[in-house]
Amino acid sequence: MNDSQRIKGVLSPVVTPFKPDLSPDPERFVRQCRWLLSQNVGLAVFGTNSEANSLSVEEKIELLDRLVAAGLDPARLMPGTGHCALTDSVRMTAHAMKLGCGGVLMLPPFYYKGVSDDGLFRSFAEVIERVGESRLRVYVYHIPPVSQVPITTGLVERLLKAYPAQTAGMKDSGGDWKNTQAFLDAFAKSGFDVFAGSETFLLQNMRNGGAGCISATANVNPGPIARLFDTWQNADADAQQSRLDEIRGTFAKFPMIPALKAAIGHYGGDAAWATVHPPLVELTPGQSEALVTELDRRQFTMPGLKR
Amino acid sequence: MNDSQRIKGVLSPVVTPFKPDLSPDPERFVRQCRWLLSQNVGLAVFGTNSEANSLSVEEKIELLDRLVAAGLDPARLMPGTGHCALTDSVRMTAHAMKLGCGGVLMLPPFYYKGVSDDGLFRSFAEVIERVGESRLRVYVYHIPPVSQVPITTGLVERLLKAYPAQTAGMKDSGGDWKNTQAFLDAFAKSGFDVFAGSETFLLQNMRNGGAGCISATANVNPGPIARLFDTWQNADADAQQSRLDEIRGTFAKFPMIPALKAAIGHYGGDAAWATVHPPLVELTPGQSEALVTELDRRQFTMPGLKR
Repeated sequence: MNDSQRIKGVLSPVVTPFKPDLSPDPERFVRQCRWLLSQNVGLAVFGTNSEANSLSVEEKIELLDRLVAAGLDPARLMPGTGHCALTDSVRMTAHAMKLGCGGVLMLPPFYYKGVSDDGLFRSFAEVIERVGESRLRVYVYHIPPVSQVPITTGLVERLLKAYPAQTAGMKDSGGDWKNTQAFLDAFAKSGFDVFAGSETFLLQNMRNGGAGCISATANVNPGPIARLFDTWQNADADAQQSRLDEIRGTFAKFPMIPALKAAIGHYGGDAAWATVHPPLVELTPGQSEALVTELDRRQFTMPGLKR
Repeated sequence: MNDSQRIKGVLSPVVTPFKPDLSPDPERFVRQCRWLLSQNVGLAVFGTNSEANSLSVEEKIELLDRLVAAGLDPARLMPGTGHCALTDSVRMTAHAMKLGCGGVLMLPPFYYKGVSDDGLFRSFAEVIERVGESRLRVYVYHIPPVSQVPITTGLVERLLKAYPAQTAGMKDSGGDWKNTQAFLDAFAKSGFDVFAGSETFLLQNMRNGGAGCISATANVNPGPIARLFDTWQNADADAQQSRLDEIRGTFAKFPMIPALKAAIGHYGGDAAWATVHPPLVELTPGQSEALVTELDRRQFTMPGLKR
């Protein structure tokens, strides 16, 4: 891969539509991904917001195959491939490489807590070695509120030393700007791409040498977030950021994943989208109504989503 | 299943031996399980101490098949079958049923934190419904220090109401006796079997209507723990408990899983056992030596382990 083609900008951890039997719905998934690309947003499929860990490797491979078969550009794909089980991570990462995905977003194994950097290094190293592809671009995934297994600067330093080509960057979903800043300070100049975990930090990240953001709300507000990435040096950047924060703030009043799906269901005119996979639960009708009422009041729209 | 044949007593979350390439080693696994049975200890294979979440469903199914093919009694097996992905949990549980396992130990889906009892109920209910076996005996697995997803009495109450035959019991690895007591008080009389998560609470659990324990150290000290279960009403029960606590205390000075494997390697004369799967790391040579020195000083033995 030519590294000038590295993934940059805004990506959506694409929410996964489910059929009534809770199996993934490939048609709706392809349609949603196509819409996101039309909004200039890349596809970090199989992230936390995708309920990816509620799906088996087989279910995810099937969805990824369907996206590529539908003609979506694999260079815009950064699927989540990190699992608790090493062989699952290897299988999913190798499959993403086979399809030509631009990168992979990799959770550390997240069952055991309090594990050492030695153990985490060995986990990532085993995946990289077993996949054995110089084209592989790994983005390590720091999301301690959920995984409870943080990624440290010490770990990234070791990975960059051992696998400079494959250690491409990270997503920081810790919600602590100081941590993002520490990674930017340590590694951004050497070409390590730091993606903020939400658009809340997009402008700040760009002003400090970051590569963009991968954000839950890019599922529902993709165009305006992508526009800030494209125009962050413009005079209205802070005003744009404030407007993004307003919309995100509305979603953040509700459980995020069910709220994203409720909004897609409502503004896309396709109520089936509201279904979530256990252990999550759908918004109540009252919550859905409150969400839409506030979004309408804020003149929120999802242009081009409705079929 | 005749409920008089329900699993009771002491079970080992059997540690999993690995080959140098980190794949599971079925020969050593069968041998170890056979030894544990000879010590009157049942087989809670694929638990936390088994590094089960570091293995794929395929790797676990292969190991389970090998145990049954080797002639080990499936009624003594309580494999861990709970995964983050619903279809993985269903597949593993259905396979355990097909093989005639006496029960299954089921983690809740553990990626998302702070999930509701509604969502967890739906997770367990989907597995029970999809497996669709009246013979199924589910033991829910409460291990908040690791899973970070607790099992509440409210959840068990709902499961018992909806699935009285299948909701067989629990393992409480929270380390808080008050919590174990609360489950015993609420459900033990109705036939819900509470297993303590370590032998530390074995005597207390038996005196309060519990069913036994499922303990890490039953991998290395099975005979004496099983003896306390068999003789807990004897005059020397408290003395037995103290002796068990001494041995456990020695192991607890080290990272538990690597320490168990180091001890099996040392006392079984089979150094290959020391291998752990990333993200865990083996004991250092200094730690191994300190462990064995203290165990020897305490006259610890593993009778019959050596080939």
